[in-house]
Amino acid sequence: MTTVQLNHRFVRYRLLPDGIPKIGLVDNEELNVAEVLGYTDLFKLIEAHPNLAADYKFTTGDVSPLNGVEVLAPLPGRDVLCIGKNYIAHAAEFHKSGFDSSDKNEQPDFPVLFTKRATSIIATRKPIYTHPNVTSSPDYEGELGGAVIINDVTARERQRDHKQFYIGKSLDTFCPMGPYVVPSSSLSFNQLHLTTKVNGQVRQSQNTSELIFDVPILIQTASMGISIQPGDIIATGTPVGVGMGMSPNVWLKDGDVVEISIPPLGTLSNPVTSTSPGVCSLSAQ
Amino acid sequence: MTTVQLNHRFVRYRLLPDGIPKIGLVDNEELNVAEVLGYTDLFKLIEAHPNLAADYKFTTGDVSPLNGVEVLAPLPGRDVLCIGKNYIAHAAEFHKSGFDSSDKNEQPDFPVLFTKRATSIIATRKPIYTHPNVTSSPDYEGELGGAVIINDVTARERQRDHKQFYIGKSLDTFCPMGPYVVPSSSLSFNQLHLTTKVNGQVRQSQNTSELIFDVPILIQTASMGISIQPGDIIATGTPVGVGMGMSPNVWLKDGDVVEISIPPLGTLSNPVTSTSPGVCSLSAQ
Repeated sequence: MTTVQLNHRFVRYRLLPDGIPKIGLVDNEELNVAEVLGYTDLFKLIEAHPNLAADYKFTTGDVSPLNGVEVLAPLPGRDVLCIGKNYIAHAAEFHKSGFDSSDKNEQPDFPVLFTKRATSIIATRKPIYTHPNVTSSPDYEGELGGAVIINDVTARERQRDHKQFYIGKSLDTFCPMGPYVVPSSSLSFNQLHLTTKVNGQVRQSQNTSELIFDVPILIQTASMGISIQPGDIIATGTPVGVGMGMSPNVWLKDGDVVEISIPPLGTLSNPVTSTSPGVCSLSAQ
Repeated sequence: MTTVQLNHRFVRYRLLPDGIPKIGLVDNEELNVAEVLGYTDLFKLIEAHPNLAADYKFTTGDVSPLNGVEVLAPLPGRDVLCIGKNYIAHAAEFHKSGFDSSDKNEQPDFPVLFTKRATSIIATRKPIYTHPNVTSSPDYEGELGGAVIINDVTARERQRDHKQFYIGKSLDTFCPMGPYVVPSSSLSFNQLHLTTKVNGQVRQSQNTSELIFDVPILIQTASMGISIQPGDIIATGTPVGVGMGMSPNVWLKDGDVVEISIPPLGTLSNPVTSTSPGVCSLSAQ
């Protein structure tokens, strides 16, 4: 047993082939994970330490090689709050694409808030299913989700046709989340760089300094008269460079790999499949 | 102990002053509640009996006078799925009101789906807080929520300003739910009459036969590629007669009482207050 400082990254994981979920701390080189003793749930850990100081020390136990464990979605089970049209260049590409039926204006006057269903959450490495019977326009959206990376995968024609975004955002497997959670006290929310690659090609590369509504304003908006709970996620919107913005449109297809990186939150990497996983996505969390 | 047939109404309740939550069956005269043994959670009961036959018999225990117990929100803790603009006359009043920024058309071509936050759920009898610091246009919406009544309380200017409906729908106390849950096998979804009264005056009175998109279509839409769980609620939209549709607008105010009735789901009755409850609404669930 040893104690570890908090300026590391939290991960929810399990030992292969069928260990129970644990909470761990990942080292800077992303080589090893040390089990955090006393917690098996990140919501409970965050609730127990609401004002985490950067020097808070957790007690750790077994250390495992990171490439020998299965990384799980860190904060599963709750609908995810999301922000739309929150980078100027992305608001422009969305407006021009013909898929935005929600507003006649290009840029919003107020933050645009909607949700993704809890059952859409999957972990890094798990496949995004394209749902060929439900949509012909699956698209990626790399986003800072507060203390974690979110891929706000979207069925574009369903987002357009149903006016409200929920349904096009909530298909099973459409919310990859992870791999790490970093306490907000260790993050500079307005100085994080996001990069999205599809099959190794850079598609999105922008800094959160360019958000139209910054993280403090989003938290204030989301919590005015609304109870926010420890561990709730706000996905802050996606930069320019989604498939909807390309001419002609380029949608996600079988065999693609989407990688979203935001140092120090790690890289969220998911393959894309057109073959139905055949099971409720909950089992993949 | 006795056995009770299923063509009764389920209720979640607790004995006063501080009993633990129980599940009960209410008699036809709404005079007594009989405790259902073996369950303290309606989600688990619904999950355990997914294909409830009308003659399924539960084992019951203590019987209490209904007016001597506290009725709780029956299905708390999950974000509530809702449908917008699903009665023709309401779609027209919404369109004319100037508060619909979501669509240039009066009637939707596809169901409009959005969510209310789980933390907005309250029980019958609990006060709806008007949030005077957050909105000046709180409005009611009586709705069939599948097997339960929902009041889809809405902050109209916030629904309009933020384009997506989530934020105007999710203020604490803005989702009164209850009092009873009736298994869908015992309901004729397309033949239920809804009446909303404010201070005893009838404001809404319409039959679910007039839904633009009926309950089977809504369930199909909400579950295409999306995992639906036992106990999930779909609020099916509100009829004409909300405060936004009146000229001049009439908003909810301190001292009002909103009563929504759908036989056999009972009457959902909530007072309105402009005095902050001062506690997270979760405690009222």
